[in-house]
Amino acid sequence: MLIRFVRHSVLFAIVALSVQLFAQADPLASWNDGPAKQAIVNFVKVTTDQSSPKFVQPDQRIATFDQDGTMWVEHPIYTQLIFCLEHVPAVVAKKPELKNVEPFKTVLSSDRAAIAKLTLPDLEKIAGATLGGMTVEEFNAQVKQWLSTAKDSRWHHPYTDLVYQPMREVMQYLRANGYRTYIVTGGGQDFVRVYANDVYGVPPEQVVGTAGETAYGYAKDGAPVLTKIPKPFFINDGPGKPVGIHLMIGRRPYAAFGNSGGDRQMLEYTQAGDGTRLAMLVLHDDATREYAYGPAQKLPDTKVGTFPQTLYDEAKAKGWFVISMKNDWKSIFAFEP
Amino acid sequence: MLIRFVRHSVLFAIVALSVQLFAQADPLASWNDGPAKQAIVNFVKVTTDQSSPKFVQPDQRIATFDQDGTMWVEHPIYTQLIFCLEHVPAVVAKKPELKNVEPFKTVLSSDRAAIAKLTLPDLEKIAGATLGGMTVEEFNAQVKQWLSTAKDSRWHHPYTDLVYQPMREVMQYLRANGYRTYIVTGGGQDFVRVYANDVYGVPPEQVVGTAGETAYGYAKDGAPVLTKIPKPFFINDGPGKPVGIHLMIGRRPYAAFGNSGGDRQMLEYTQAGDGTRLAMLVLHDDATREYAYGPAQKLPDTKVGTFPQTLYDEAKAKGWFVISMKNDWKSIFAFEP
Repeated sequence: MLIRFVRHSVLFAIVALSVQLFAQADPLASWNDGPAKQAIVNFVKVTTDQSSPKFVQPDQRIATFDQDGTMWVEHPIYTQLIFCLEHVPAVVAKKPELKNVEPFKTVLSSDRAAIAKLTLPDLEKIAGATLGGMTVEEFNAQVKQWLSTAKDSRWHHPYTDLVYQPMREVMQYLRANGYRTYIVTGGGQDFVRVYANDVYGVPPEQVVGTAGETAYGYAKDGAPVLTKIPKPFFINDGPGKPVGIHLMIGRRPYAAFGNSGGDRQMLEYTQAGDGTRLAMLVLHDDATREYAYGPAQKLPDTKVGTFPQTLYDEAKAKGWFVISMKNDWKSIFAFEP
Repeated sequence: MLIRFVRHSVLFAIVALSVQLFAQADPLASWNDGPAKQAIVNFVKVTTDQSSPKFVQPDQRIATFDQDGTMWVEHPIYTQLIFCLEHVPAVVAKKPELKNVEPFKTVLSSDRAAIAKLTLPDLEKIAGATLGGMTVEEFNAQVKQWLSTAKDSRWHHPYTDLVYQPMREVMQYLRANGYRTYIVTGGGQDFVRVYANDVYGVPPEQVVGTAGETAYGYAKDGAPVLTKIPKPFFINDGPGKPVGIHLMIGRRPYAAFGNSGGDRQMLEYTQAGDGTRLAMLVLHDDATREYAYGPAQKLPDTKVGTFPQTLYDEAKAKGWFVISMKNDWKSIFAFEP
């Protein structure tokens, strides 16, 4: 009985301590105090407080996050494109006839200047050859294997380490307050699903992305197989993002986070809903700790994947919040660079 | 202190009683004892018992349900098609030029024999005119309004009452055991999402179905709108069901329920996964309480939406479970007909 009492007391003390620590810990510890952090905290407060006129029912709490440039580094080149380029030798090993065919020849040459000049149709050919023609399980295994060994050339870390710690905290903070967090990416849905659960805590069914066609068929032993067809099915970018959200989620988000022209319509659509909505843009203005591009470097509006000046203007006009990496983020990554 | 003790005692008694009641209540009360009921109970037991070698991690627990003919009555005509036909007058009121154009003219004639002879291209024209050309919110409102007043011609009940009570119990039973339940229907995703939460407890993001195209644009006041385009985008039927499951869920189900040739590939794909899987087919063999069709009436394999003999044979050969409405179900609906 005494032992049981002691046990209970110890347990109680641990629980009490945990509650206290939890209450004191800042869920957005990697953020500096400022309007961006305050906007996130306010949004959660007014949408989850039952006495608030802006209270949002738990089943309606949806938050969507762009990936490249919003959740992790996209500069100077998308991670998925690096996967495709680095996967060309394996594709050519299986199909030697591609060895002297462009654009594969250029990729194999390792001539960085020539590779940088590849056109969009070239890249589409490479994406088709490296992302299609295999079963979905084979593709998953290839991506998993690549991610476990590949490292970026600036920080020499696995690509999955290049996630912005402040954004991961926003996801966790929203989830802790009953929000379901979705990745809504212009990148490949199947690619992101391979690591989204481990890296972001986002399960496969909450990853919405660009998708190629998939064909149902049977292996030689009669087992059903799904094969990836190198043919685009759905482009989840720009106006495709609200369309993809409607298709895959069927609800309008209450919060959306992006960083580029490809996120414009998702942010517009989110903010146009009733009640309190949160639309935020990550501004890459930290050339020292990450990169500075978009309005921070006055790049033209036309460059794909950048944060164009017109979007920055729309954000200001509509009351979206712009997150300055330089000023709003105490640290960028979970590791110390 | 005494009061607190009494309070605790009362609370304890209530909890204990609830646990006891819960343990005694049969979650599948509308099922007769037999191999089908036993298969469901066994499946849940072995996949949720931590000590079982077939234990399935909670995040992997996915169950998919066809809708028409599996969850609710599909005979003699799909509910969504009735919605389309009954919606033709409203469409013609807006576009009077359709009044004398086929197939709208025939539908307006109320000539049942002629309507029954409409061809698939006719029906597609009607579906296009009644399911497209409006914002997604307008469409939702139309379906909601129709469902609140329309009644079926046999039982004179709202269509949403024609849900099979035993199947609703299976859904609830699986959810109570950590499974996420998805509707995977050849019917329209947007249509089913309007009522799935109220009727099945299945939220919009867990409804996978056939989808038309959607366009992002702006209303006159500048507000972003999603408009339904009368053009098919994805057919979630037959081989499209595993493809849709991969696209929308990204995981292979552990349990799948269907009733027709359109569910064959979903059941094959489900059963081909490792560990213990459950594949079940509802056989419509109860001409008295519902309908008898498919193998129960030896209909030919070619008829769309039926349960063909070859599927019945495949079920037997592969160890899928066939649910006999007549023998396995104590009651069919939640209401007493």
